[in-house]
Amino acid sequence: MTVATIEAVDFFYLRMPEVEAIADNSQDSLLVRVASGNDVGWGECDAAPLVSIASFIAPMSHGICRPVQDSVLGQLLDSPADIARINKLVRANGLDLLQTSHTLAGIDMAMWDLLGRRRGEPVWRLLGHEQSHGKTPYASQLFGDDPAETLAKGKAQRDRGFRAVKFGWGPYGQGDARSDREHIAAAREGLGEEGILLVDAGTVWVDDLEAASARLEALKTHRATWLEEPFISPALAAYRQLAELAAPLRLAGGEGAHNFHMAQQMIDYAGIGYVQIDAGRMGITDAKSVADYAAQRDVRFVNHTFNSHLALSASLQPFAGHEKDDICEYPVEARPLAREITQSMIERDANGLIRAPDAPGLGLEIDTAAMARYLVQVEIKIDGEMLYTTPALP
Amino acid sequence: MTVATIEAVDFFYLRMPEVEAIADNSQDSLLVRVASGNDVGWGECDAAPLVSIASFIAPMSHGICRPVQDSVLGQLLDSPADIARINKLVRANGLDLLQTSHTLAGIDMAMWDLLGRRRGEPVWRLLGHEQSHGKTPYASQLFGDDPAETLAKGKAQRDRGFRAVKFGWGPYGQGDARSDREHIAAAREGLGEEGILLVDAGTVWVDDLEAASARLEALKTHRATWLEEPFISPALAAYRQLAELAAPLRLAGGEGAHNFHMAQQMIDYAGIGYVQIDAGRMGITDAKSVADYAAQRDVRFVNHTFNSHLALSASLQPFAGHEKDDICEYPVEARPLAREITQSMIERDANGLIRAPDAPGLGLEIDTAAMARYLVQVEIKIDGEMLYTTPALP
Repeated sequence: MTVATIEAVDFFYLRMPEVEAIADNSQDSLLVRVASGNDVGWGECDAAPLVSIASFIAPMSHGICRPVQDSVLGQLLDSPADIARINKLVRANGLDLLQTSHTLAGIDMAMWDLLGRRRGEPVWRLLGHEQSHGKTPYASQLFGDDPAETLAKGKAQRDRGFRAVKFGWGPYGQGDARSDREHIAAAREGLGEEGILLVDAGTVWVDDLEAASARLEALKTHRATWLEEPFISPALAAYRQLAELAAPLRLAGGEGAHNFHMAQQMIDYAGIGYVQIDAGRMGITDAKSVADYAAQRDVRFVNHTFNSHLALSASLQPFAGHEKDDICEYPVEARPLAREITQSMIERDANGLIRAPDAPGLGLEIDTAAMARYLVQVEIKIDGEMLYTTPALP
Repeated sequence: MTVATIEAVDFFYLRMPEVEAIADNSQDSLLVRVASGNDVGWGECDAAPLVSIASFIAPMSHGICRPVQDSVLGQLLDSPADIARINKLVRANGLDLLQTSHTLAGIDMAMWDLLGRRRGEPVWRLLGHEQSHGKTPYASQLFGDDPAETLAKGKAQRDRGFRAVKFGWGPYGQGDARSDREHIAAAREGLGEEGILLVDAGTVWVDDLEAASARLEALKTHRATWLEEPFISPALAAYRQLAELAAPLRLAGGEGAHNFHMAQQMIDYAGIGYVQIDAGRMGITDAKSVADYAAQRDVRFVNHTFNSHLALSASLQPFAGHEKDDICEYPVEARPLAREITQSMIERDANGLIRAPDAPGLGLEIDTAAMARYLVQVEIKIDGEMLYTTPALP
């Protein structure tokens, strides 16, 4: 038997011709290809591409500030236990290299994809789930620039058959509470009385309890299901105090967590009702641990996804078998780049539900022709030695 | 009056000819020079240099994943409030760029140094401290490879007049509890009965309460003052449980915190007796907020420093005026690079104490001739455009 070690890890930085200063993560992408023996797997980091590439190839600073490649290349990859071991090694050797986790996340996805293909099994089965349950997708989009546009955006998603819609960022929280109230009323009107309304404040109040509290009444009046990210992830005390004031409205958060422990803290101390995890930031491995921990604590697990459907599939795997975690984020405003880099997409079934694919690995194929259209050429040289150049497309 | 904006921020990556895989952060350095009007200030990031450089110049990914330079260049820098405002802007615009905080830390130091020089005041006075108290420096060094070497290293620091010594990393926690006990006994013997003994486990047990608990008896028997970093910073529950088992031995931690809120969490939930903050990872601004918060909660603030004396000065500023926070980390094994890049060093006074300098800014001058000996040439190119090359030395 061949010993299957990781022989190559290649990063591809893709970018839209124009990148705008709005909260839309689909404007660029960092794809990762892991190769071992005859197998290949793909992942996608939700990360600043150049910075994550640098963290993969940077010269060692000291024993726990090593480039990610030192802990991945040459490692045995033959079982889920190998992936767990590699995760642990990367995190220990990169303790003082802050970018590490965003870089690892894409590699972790690619390792799971590869192992699933090697074994002919979907990743969710390798993770221990018995089936991949259908989940209600919520159409995830930005608020309109004014309430009329927010109303129109709500109607549009309702017309497309979405029962649940999330509005976030844009003007929300940038003006006063009255203006925010008008957006919430418009969102509810656009969505209809029966729709599931979710609101994302995008950390706009940082840790300002008073500013956030001033928005609660409108959210309760218009029956929002959750208020997401009123504060930055580590502002646990502010979260907890707001959660008490907000009930029965629940708080949601966690996308800022880039390892299991950070998400665990939010579950333990922030009083959140929903924990939102991006596998492109912490990897599938840690995300599965969060999904299991959340289930024990009766906190609902939800994916955070704003990139391609490769990242969507990866983010659905950790909670695929958890029937009670029954809604999921579904990006509906993604740029062409994010839509085109997989040959197919995860579509709603006849009941309007989506699920992690029942196919080997992450269940999607990369479109290398599409990659070529968006590929960015990067060169990093140190003391005359080329440490990274964009690899040739497969 | 000239409006004083930030006109330039330059990064200099310095490196020892040989870098070893040991927990010694002084093997390379990322110096930052900020220029505004006729003034210049210097700072040092405790960070993987290439990765932090990349985070400063990377193309924008989206609205909250912007390069650090976008939030710094051109900003008004005329008061402490300006520095606070720039910190807030960098963190908001870099919410999804993980490396941001380590890069900001060195810029923040340089901004304080510049403002202090401009006003002819030491940074600690600009921070609101009335005086710079002397603090007992603890000689910070790695454990020996075996107990005999640990004993010799303890004796050597005692002979150099250090009343307090910290031993960390190396073999500690890598073998069994019995072998660790021998190192602790040797450290106590080398240091003498009266010495202050501090022990640093370097996160070796990650979040394994049982493994850490097995080391407590030896630490209590040999009267260690603290056990530092048994776990990674976000493992708050494990910290808290160990703290209860450890008393009267105190736990210390916090060097992994790269913003105020992460340190606040450790103070609120981890049960630590000492919070250790590296201004090279979160900046002087956030470190001052931590020092004040710790004082309210009767947790002792201590600097974490393993780099040059520029970083040491920066890390002493936030708690310079706090008389109860009376010990401080003092690196004694730093490589030539870290010793040579300042023209002078912070030395012990006749009473064996050290203090933040009573001189403008951070109070130390950079030795550019020394910088030249260690300077690394970096080039980063995207789609043929040069985004960064190592700048000329001043």
